[in-house]
Parts: sequence; C-alpha cells; structure tokens
Amino acid sequence: MNILDIIAKKRDKGKLTKEEIEFFVKGYTENSITDYQAAALVMAIYINGMNEREITDLTLAMAYSGDVLDLSSLGEVVDKHSTGGVGDKITLILMPIVASLGIPVAKMSGRGLGFTGGTVDKLESIPGYITGVKVEDFIENVKKIGISLIGQTLNLAPADKKLYALRDTISCTESIPLIASSIMSKKIASGANKIVIDVTCGSGAFMKNIDEAKELARVMTKIGELAGKETKCVITDMNEPVGYAVGNTLEVIEAIEVLKGNIMPEDVKNIITELGGNMLLLANKVSSLEEGKNKILENISNGKAYNKFLELVKNQGGDISYIEDTNKFEKAKYIEPIIAEKDGKIIKLDAYTVGKMSVYLGAGRIRKEDDIDKSVGFVFNKKVGAKVTKGEILGYIHANNEDKVKELLRQEIFTIG
Amino acid sequence: MNILDIIAKKRDKGKLTKEEIEFFVKGYTENSITDYQAAALVMAIYINGMNEREITDLTLAMAYSGDVLDLSSLGEVVDKHSTGGVGDKITLILMPIVASLGIPVAKMSGRGLGFTGGTVDKLESIPGYITGVKVEDFIENVKKIGISLIGQTLNLAPADKKLYALRDTISCTESIPLIASSIMSKKIASGANKIVIDVTCGSGAFMKNIDEAKELARVMTKIGELAGKETKCVITDMNEPVGYAVGNTLEVIEAIEVLKGNIMPEDVKNIITELGGNMLLLANKVSSLEEGKNKILENISNGKAYNKFLELVKNQGGDISYIEDTNKFEKAKYIEPIIAEKDGKIIKLDAYTVGKMSVYLGAGRIRKEDDIDKSVGFVFNKKVGAKVTKGEILGYIHANNEDKVKELLRQEIFTIG
Repeated sequence: MNILDIIAKKRDKGKLTKEEIEFFVKGYTENSITDYQAAALVMAIYINGMNEREITDLTLAMAYSGDVLDLSSLGEVVDKHSTGGVGDKITLILMPIVASLGIPVAKMSGRGLGFTGGTVDKLESIPGYITGVKVEDFIENVKKIGISLIGQTLNLAPADKKLYALRDTISCTESIPLIASSIMSKKIASGANKIVIDVTCGSGAFMKNIDEAKELARVMTKIGELAGKETKCVITDMNEPVGYAVGNTLEVIEAIEVLKGNIMPEDVKNIITELGGNMLLLANKVSSLEEGKNKILENISNGKAYNKFLELVKNQGGDISYIEDTNKFEKAKYIEPIIAEKDGKIIKLDAYTVGKMSVYLGAGRIRKEDDIDKSVGFVFNKKVGAKVTKGEILGYIHANNEDKVKELLRQEIFTIG
Repeated sequence: MNILDIIAKKRDKGKLTKEEIEFFVKGYTENSITDYQAAALVMAIYINGMNEREITDLTLAMAYSGDVLDLSSLGEVVDKHSTGGVGDKITLILMPIVASLGIPVAKMSGRGLGFTGGTVDKLESIPGYITGVKVEDFIENVKKIGISLIGQTLNLAPADKKLYALRDTISCTESIPLIASSIMSKKIASGANKIVIDVTCGSGAFMKNIDEAKELARVMTKIGELAGKETKCVITDMNEPVGYAVGNTLEVIEAIEVLKGNIMPEDVKNIITELGGNMLLLANKVSSLEEGKNKILENISNGKAYNKFLELVKNQGGDISYIEDTNKFEKAKYIEPIIAEKDGKIIKLDAYTVGKMSVYLGAGRIRKEDDIDKSVGFVFNKKVGAKVTKGEILGYIHANNEDKVKELLRQEIFTIG
C-alpha cells in the first residue's frame, strides 16, 4: 500500500478502503506521510466527498491515533458536545444538572480559539480551580462525586489535531465529512458510550445555514450508529449569543445564577432542556423527552444541580466563596452602558459581531499561544425581539482599555428596527 | 489577495484571474506559499481543470518566474521539443539539419530521469564536449556557426521545477493543464519565438493513448497562440523505441550514422521529416510541408547536416575523431546477442520495457543525483513487423555486468507472434 495510490484513488472519485484510510492516518500521525501529501488527499476528499462508511473509518482511525480514555469503570457515560458558539456556557450549567440526576460526567474540554469560547478558560476564571488533572485522579473524582470537568490532559486524537490545523491553511475547513469525523473522533477518543451533540447554526457558528447543520447532524448520527456509539444531534440557533453574558468570568457568573435559579434566559432554558432531556433518554433515566426536560428544570428548582456544582468546584480545588457570592469575582476596569439610540424593537444582536468584539476586548485568542483577559466581555439586558425606548440601557461593555470601549461604542452592537 | 481565497476559488470550480495565478506562482517560488498549500491548489486544478486562458496565464507566470533567455539577437528562433521517450536521439539528428538550412539553433537541454533519456547525457558521451557554457558564449556560438546545444546553465522556470517535483509526490502528474503549462513555460523561458513539439504517444511516453496526446497537442497549440509563440504539435508513436539504439553512447553513434547517410530507420525518417518540415514552414524557409520534408532529407544526402554536426562538436570542444570514426567510442564489457526463440513475426518490442531495462543496466537515473553508465544499452537489428527465424540475432545487450545480462536474457524483450 502506498500514499500515491490512495491519493490517486480519491482524486478519481474512488472509495477508500478501511485499510487505506488507516494507512493514511497512521502515516500522517507518524510523519511518514508529508503535509503536502495529506493536503492533496484532503482536497480530493473535500471535492469528491466520502460515503458514510469511509467517514466512519476515518473517524475511528483518528480516534485511535493516540490515547483513548477508558471510562468503562464509570458505567454508561453519555457525553455532550457543542459545535461552538458565542456566549455558550451550556456545559457549565448542564453537566452539574445531569450529574445530579445520576449520569456520570467525566468531561475533558478545550480552550477557546477565535470568537468561540472554551470551557477550560471559563472554569479557570474560578480562583483555585485546577483543570490539569491526572487521568487516574480524574476518574476517581467522578467515582467520588459523579462529576469532573477538566482540560485535555491526554493526547486525544493527534491525527485529528494535525489534520484540523492543516485544513485551516488549505481552505478545507468547511467539509461535512471532515468536520463530522473531526468531532466524532474526539468524542470517541474521550471515552463516551453515547453522545448528544448541540449542532449550532447561525452567524456565530461553524454552520451558517440550516441545511448544512442538518446534513452535519445526519452524518454524525450515522457515524455514531456505524461506530456503535449512539448519537443524538440537536440543532440550536447561534444567530445571537446564548444567554445574556459573553466573556469568561461573565459567563461563569451567568451560569452560577442560572444554577441558583435566580435567572433563566429563554434560549438557555431551551438548550439545556433539549440537550439534557436527550441525555437522560439515552442514559435510560427517563422514558420520554418530556419527562427528561422536566427533570432538568426540577433539579435546578430543588437546588440539587447547584449543590453538585459547588461540590465539583470544591473537589477541583476551586474557592466556593466566589460561587456563593459572585460579587467577589474580579471586575473589569470599565463597565460602560450601551444605550438605545431610538425607540423600537431589537431586530438583531449578531453573534458573530459580538464574538469578534469580545476577542477585540481580549476575551478570546487569535493565536493558540495568546493570553486572554478573563474579566472582559458583554452583559446584555435585552435580546432580539425586545421593545426598547430611546436612552434605555441595553447592556454593558466590560473592558480594561478605555479606547477599546470608545471604539466599540462607535459601532453597531444592537440593530433597532 | 491571499492564497486561501485562491485555493477556495479553484476548489469551488471558479476561474482564477491572471493576478491570482501570478500571486500563487510568485509566492510559491519565493516560499511564502507552502508546499501543502500548493499541493491543495494543484489537486483542485487536477480535479476541476483550467480553461485555456488560465493555462496560458499559468504558463507565462512560470516562464517568467526565473531567468528568461533573450535570443532576439539571433533573429527568429524555431525551437523543437519532445515530450520524451525511449531511444529518442532526434535532437542530435534534427538540429544540425535545420541549422544547416539556416534556422538558428540555440538549445538548452536537460538530463534524463527515469526511463526517458536526456540530450545532455548523450552529448557528454562525446569526449571533450562541453555542455556547461556561459550564456554570452552560447549566443556567440550560435552567431558564429548557427548552432549550439548545451545544458541548462540558466535558472529557467524555477516555479515549474518546484511544481513538477511536487506533482510527482501527490499523484498529480497526469493532468493536461499541468503538463501543457510545464512544457510551454520551459520553452518560453528558453527564448523560442516559434515551437514545434513532438508529442510522443505510447507505452514509452507520458501520454499512453492517442486521445490524451491529441488533447495535450490541442492545449499546447492554444497556449502558443494565446502567448504569441506560434506552436505546431506533431504526434508520434512511442510504443517501440525510436530507431535501433537505446543508451547514451549507442544513440550518439546511431545519430552520427544517420547524419552520415549510412543508415535511416523508417521511424527516425518519419519523425525528422515531420518535425523538420514543420520547423522550416514556421521559419518561412519553405512554402509547403512537402518541400520542407524534402529539404531535410536533401541536407543529409549532400553532407551539409553532417558537416554542421562536426562543426558543432568541434566548437563545443568535442573530439571530432570520434565522430569521424565511431569505433573509437568506448564499448561496454559485455555485448550479448538476443536470439529469436522461434520463427515468426515480431509483434512487440515494448518501449516502456526496454526503457526500464536500460535503466536497470545503468543507462538512466532513478534519482536525480544518480550516476549513469554511458556505454550500456541496446542495439536492435529488428523492429516490430519484421519476419524472423529461430536462432536469428535480433539485437545486442550492451552491459558492464554479466549478471544483469543473464537476468535480462531471462525476460522477454521481443514478442514473436
């Protein structure tokens, strides 16, 4: 077997065998296949596509290209994944809820890149919270309290890491087979038995339109079936930011307030009940989606989810006094109001624009090695559909640089129609 | 302008502008565009194609990516090129002929790679012949005696060199737009006003079938037209080796014997009259192809072509006593006959097989840095179509290693049907 024949086969619209796909993934991981050979094959895959069997073989080859987390000692683990977005603090809210309902939560999350935030960055806003934990301790934590949220301390799916970085430099990011196999390979490597995926769709997401989102959902569901990892995809809107806060510390505070039952943004409620309801269904904890949705909200009302979150933070070394009193979190230097310039109705609060602005403020990374500023971002009072009057405060910019605030206030954040 | 947009455009079947193509060629030559980005674009071009305008823009961008030979002081230069084959000594025969007919010949040739021989290797079989000549001297030589054949002493079309090497490693060699632009860019960089191209077709050529050869010929003719370099393509057979000899010194000897009028293999006659007739037509030296063909043969008969060849060798420092008496050339140690094993007719003498065998004997290079053995190869007595009787000598293997002779004699060289 050699890479030239494999490239030529896909170039000519052929179907690659399992062995050919494994040969490529292994060779590329071990550097015996070069970046330019991988680039040629990836472009051929982009243009000529892959069938579901090929995508599944690619997924599994990438999943097993490095460490594979063994969670078998925890019983049936239902994992949750989101394809990313702006203001997406769902993991922080939902995972303590499902843990409080008896689903073991052993989740390794990533850092943010570009306008998409990362759960690890958010967790690290909590003073003392340790995200770098040895695998044995990680699993022990889950056994002890039913939940652990940490960073990626294992070498999960290195083939996917290499291919993902390559795709970015050769205009091959937006390919359903490649996106689907990338997501699913990481999920399989991180040990889940069953997977619920939030396929975000809109300006602030990877998938810009509903047809692409549906196709991605269909393909990932199929891969899950073929790989023996039951997968349920839920498509959610990402045209405006999720909830009211955008920015690391600000989102943690919002998540805590939701878990305390103090606030419940309508979109957050929809997402956590849809995803959580499906997780409970897959875990056979409930007999209908409706029952699952109710249980999700019930464990907020009865305080069990919040207590689980406190337990999690304490167990990871975090200072729970910040959770109990969110006023303790360090604030940004400038907190400037965004004022409505006229009467009307908010017709747009664009997730992509807000995401870019929060990166500009320092909340996100442009390059992997960048530092981030945890305290900056936005807290909105209003979302799309709300009626507003001229002079009303629509939200606040949290910043550590006065010029940046001025610059953002010159731009349109809310569109009032 | 950036390479990601250019890759994405061709990926999505778009037409690249002249500026985009120039941006890519310049960036790749200067290493600001990486091999993997070039690989992705080349694969997209392979699969989605290029129209004639794009191919011409690519050709010109590559032609002007390095040195461009200025032959304007020589008047109208009609160059000749072959897409390569086995036993192809046509340049050695034809160029002295057309020089003796008043067409200035200023030709830089390459070395051989794989089973295709290189004119420079053949010229260097003549003791004393210098192929490395400064450009000023090269042009002076042509002014003085009307002909100079040397190696590539300039940095001609470096972009093509890089792309050609890359294509080989990513299964993208057999693409008409990429082959056509590669050939034409080198011809344009080497200063020709008008070009006659021998498009070889058959087992020993790049183009294996006649439809591909016709398409390549059509595209190169069109590029020539769009680039203002009138181009005429002639398709010739390369299913059996050209002439009777294969191997560097052996081919030089055959060429000398043809120029002396001692022998004239039928296929060599067809090729030199077709190509030469068209060169004379393009140079406005004759008014019909027929007249051109006659002139080619006439200047062999009257000795003018041979005298021009002697003049060339002398002028390049070569020892003309070898030309006058070809017995002086160093012979291989073993010259073993190939014997007919039965009565019948020769139905196959496969150019590809003979090419591979001559590389095995040491006549050709597998890698660029390999040394070659000038004396080894084949001299055939018979070609396809000849009737033979059992025990008859069909040709000789010239070798410097007895085991290799034995190995080759175990294999089928001639197929008798």
